[in-house]
Amino acid sequence: MARPLLVTEGAGKTLPVEIRPGLAVGAGRPVVIAGPCSVESPEQIQAAAKAVRRAGASLLRGGAFKPRTSPYSFQGLGEVGLRMLAEAGERTGLPVVTEVMDQAEIEVVERYADVLQVGARNMQNFRLLTALGRTRKPVLLKRGPGATLEEWLYAAEYVAKGGNGRIILCERGIRTFEPYTRYTLDLATAVAAKQLTHLPVIADPSHGCGRRELVAPLARAALAAGLDGVMLEVHPDPAQALSDADQALTPADFQRLMVELGLAPARATADSP
Amino acid sequence: MARPLLVTEGAGKTLPVEIRPGLAVGAGRPVVIAGPCSVESPEQIQAAAKAVRRAGASLLRGGAFKPRTSPYSFQGLGEVGLRMLAEAGERTGLPVVTEVMDQAEIEVVERYADVLQVGARNMQNFRLLTALGRTRKPVLLKRGPGATLEEWLYAAEYVAKGGNGRIILCERGIRTFEPYTRYTLDLATAVAAKQLTHLPVIADPSHGCGRRELVAPLARAALAAGLDGVMLEVHPDPAQALSDADQALTPADFQRLMVELGLAPARATADSP
Amino acid sequence: MARPLLVTEGAGKTLPVEIRPGLAVGAGRPVVIAGPCSVESPEQIQAAAKAVRRAGASLLRGGAFKPRTSPYSFQGLGEVGLRMLAEAGERTGLPVVTEVMDQAEIEVVERYADVLQVGARNMQNFRLLTALGRTRKPVLLKRGPGATLEEWLYAAEYVAKGGNGRIILCERGIRTFEPYTRYTLDLATAVAAKQLTHLPVIADPSHGCGRRELVAPLARAALAAGLDGVMLEVHPDPAQALSDADQALTPADFQRLMVELGLAPARATADSP
Amino acid sequence: MARPLLVTEGAGKTLPVEIRPGLAVGAGRPVVIAGPCSVESPEQIQAAAKAVRRAGASLLRGGAFKPRTSPYSFQGLGEVGLRMLAEAGERTGLPVVTEVMDQAEIEVVERYADVLQVGARNMQNFRLLTALGRTRKPVLLKRGPGATLEEWLYAAEYVAKGGNGRIILCERGIRTFEPYTRYTLDLATAVAAKQLTHLPVIADPSHGCGRRELVAPLARAALAAGLDGVMLEVHPDPAQALSDADQALTPADFQRLMVELGLAPARATADSP
Repeated sequence: MARPLLVTEGAGKTLPVEIRPGLAVGAGRPVVIAGPCSVESPEQIQAAAKAVRRAGASLLRGGAFKPRTSPYSFQGLGEVGLRMLAEAGERTGLPVVTEVMDQAEIEVVERYADVLQVGARNMQNFRLLTALGRTRKPVLLKRGPGATLEEWLYAAEYVAKGGNGRIILCERGIRTFEPYTRYTLDLATAVAAKQLTHLPVIADPSHGCGRRELVAPLARAALAAGLDGVMLEVHPDPAQALSDADQALTPADFQRLMVELGLAPARATADSP
Repeated sequence: MARPLLVTEGAGKTLPVEIRPGLAVGAGRPVVIAGPCSVESPEQIQAAAKAVRRAGASLLRGGAFKPRTSPYSFQGLGEVGLRMLAEAGERTGLPVVTEVMDQAEIEVVERYADVLQVGARNMQNFRLLTALGRTRKPVLLKRGPGATLEEWLYAAEYVAKGGNGRIILCERGIRTFEPYTRYTLDLATAVAAKQLTHLPVIADPSHGCGRRELVAPLARAALAAGLDGVMLEVHPDPAQALSDADQALTPADFQRLMVELGLAPARATADSP
Repeated sequence: MARPLLVTEGAGKTLPVEIRPGLAVGAGRPVVIAGPCSVESPEQIQAAAKAVRRAGASLLRGGAFKPRTSPYSFQGLGEVGLRMLAEAGERTGLPVVTEVMDQAEIEVVERYADVLQVGARNMQNFRLLTALGRTRKPVLLKRGPGATLEEWLYAAEYVAKGGNGRIILCERGIRTFEPYTRYTLDLATAVAAKQLTHLPVIADPSHGCGRRELVAPLARAALAAGLDGVMLEVHPDPAQALSDADQALTPADFQRLMVELGLAPARATADSP
Repeated sequence: MARPLLVTEGAGKTLPVEIRPGLAVGAGRPVVIAGPCSVESPEQIQAAAKAVRRAGASLLRGGAFKPRTSPYSFQGLGEVGLRMLAEAGERTGLPVVTEVMDQAEIEVVERYADVLQVGARNMQNFRLLTALGRTRKPVLLKRGPGATLEEWLYAAEYVAKGGNGRIILCERGIRTFEPYTRYTLDLATAVAAKQLTHLPVIADPSHGCGRRELVAPLARAALAAGLDGVMLEVHPDPAQALSDADQALTPADFQRLMVELGLAPARATADSP
């Protein structure tokens, strides 16, 4: 592999990406990012935020600008959704992660988000990557389902080259011939990304398999492999979710998984400050 | 497959996309789009334009905004390159096809191009697709190397839904395990795209295999399968090409292929008006 | 690729494999092998044989030992089926191609078949390949759906090394992420196999796509790409077929395709000698 | 998925497969099968056996009949190798696992082996599977690199239908587009195989990635995901290995991994009885 320059400096030794004082990805303790696929209503996102916080999550996820295969699917609530997400984050004290789909939207998303997510379909949207290199917020860069490890690292390099080295890589499954799972979670390459760069690397088992009953085993596997965290879809009522209903965990599932991972707080914390 | 609405109306019966009076894609006679991967200099693009025109090509291709895996690779000449391309097109009488990478660049690309190309990596850049739905120029939509047929058709639907039905689909190879070729040209799905929609469909064997010696057989195969045309990389001097050197045909290779395809003009035409 | 030795001698110049005097694969004129997936009854295989012969096929195919994914699917008629196949071949004057699944079955299959087929699932059954190297009948070696070009050529090398150089390669589709087709027919690699060896190479579009409506376009594409022939599933009544019903052509479909390919006889031939 | 019958009875509740009294796969405590790719000499296999036993392995692996891509690669020592393997097993008290490539070889392999392995390339060698259904020894069935979950379970069904229900499934990586690793270890499908059947399921991270530095993280991941064990290549001197040198662990690597997995014995055991 022709080596990218910035992201491979000091390869193998992960430099933590600080989200806010006291919270960093890649600093040893695994980080759990949880929340619904899409922000749907103030009630939904607040219920999700409280549930994931109570169970021990460190960041809240939720999409407001949604890249959807079909133009007829729910496209997200846009800035209104961002505002709901930010408010749920504030009330629970959780920083928020949300997707930005286009360089023209960076400004608005940045106003509400603590971490800017580049979705899998935009991994090689080079204008977006370049523009994110000029922001100062951490970037969560998902691997494209058809992208090689080399392409993924070069995509990160676009951001780093622009001056923003606060990049978190996220493996979320690749396209393979296996029809049973939606994608094939490629933990080997995620581990290799950690070995070849100084970037923290997390995994998204929810998108990675697309089946609720496989999410917990894969989350445990990701952390056992040495990754720096997991990103999980949790919905207060998965059956009513406007997107990705099949892969979302219930709050109870999530609570159980956090206990298995040894990441649940010693005792239930108060709901909100 | 959940059926998209606009692109499947009258499925199986291709509605030609007119490029200019007397030239349409999908009207029966196969269309050949040829030229270099990147516009490199006025001399290079003009030499390419003359060569491909002489051999019978109908459109000139050439990239000015280049999506490259590495930020350290040649990124194209930008608007200066667009101007060179347009001038080469004018001199040879060939309409030009070139890539647009971001919605913010549509305006400038549209000024010079006859057909707006969406590259494989941007096939699910939904903001770009939506914005192209508001233009009035034909859109050449390449299939992403990790995209299913369904995703490809829905990407076209984003453009069509915006009001621009002049879409040409282009199969350019998918990611598979086979390392001998860069991608695997998926002619079956390209034919299926013709059967399931009213859109013309072409193939790009140059990117599809990444090896010069396989381009001609695959171009013949694509037309024999009933596709509406092929897009081919031709460079006046492939060994000096700034990108995709291994897959570019020489003018002599291209001339020979056009004879094989029965698309070479009866006799050499004058170089330029 | 580490180069195998015997199959690449004189690479690029195909040495024809003679089936019987006056009939060879790789001698210039494309060869069409046609017939049902499975031999089901004397009536079925004879009807198929007559139909494909009338339309211009050169060899008759039909399976008696059937490798099936499920042990509960129809497993073929065994030697009884071989006898039916051989008789149908004799009556129509067509040599027959049929699969051998295990080295222990070579002797019985050889008694009835003119060409011994190694199925895709057995491409790396090295005991079988080695044993076929000791036979004197031509071997039709299908590419495994998960096999690289290199592995395919080395599989052929096992046969050649045993002393049997009469090998015909057959591309029949590889496993990819695309769900619309059963497999993805990889014509590029089939052409590469011709360029890298002296072996004739054919394609099987029926298995390659698994959809009847795509078979004819892919068969035309395979021959236009320069392959030496095609293998096609034709059943007198596809709706009643015991295996692969979705991809079998009717005799009328097949007749039409042979005309398109320019391989139909000038006028209908008599049914049988 | 059309459901196989025997292997899915009581799905989700794993029935342990007993290897010998006191040692079963699927009984709760993870089982580690370790040893060299190939048996090369009495010294090599005994050194390997002692090393893996000392570190806590439960079974010894080693190939004597080797399926190799090229006929010019080392093909294994055959029955002589089986004898060396059995002797090393006896001296260390470890049961042995080795591959059987053809139904004609079952008898000889059975004489020496405690567990009969079906290699990935033979996963759909239905004659072999059927014949193994008539043996009374446990069968370790590797998933083919191009095989779907459904095909893998049906392959197991061939063995079960023959009367031998003592089947251990082993995921060893599938073919994908990612070139960095040799295969992509598909833990999601391995977990699904446990959920859908009553069979124990293990993983082989050595073949699954083909890179020594990824083996330990993937082994930890496999057990964290809930699989019943791992199969690992360990060679006394990987640099001298006749096959798979890049993925073999040294005895020291292996020892370290067993400690990480919590499977190393409390203190070093004596070398041999």
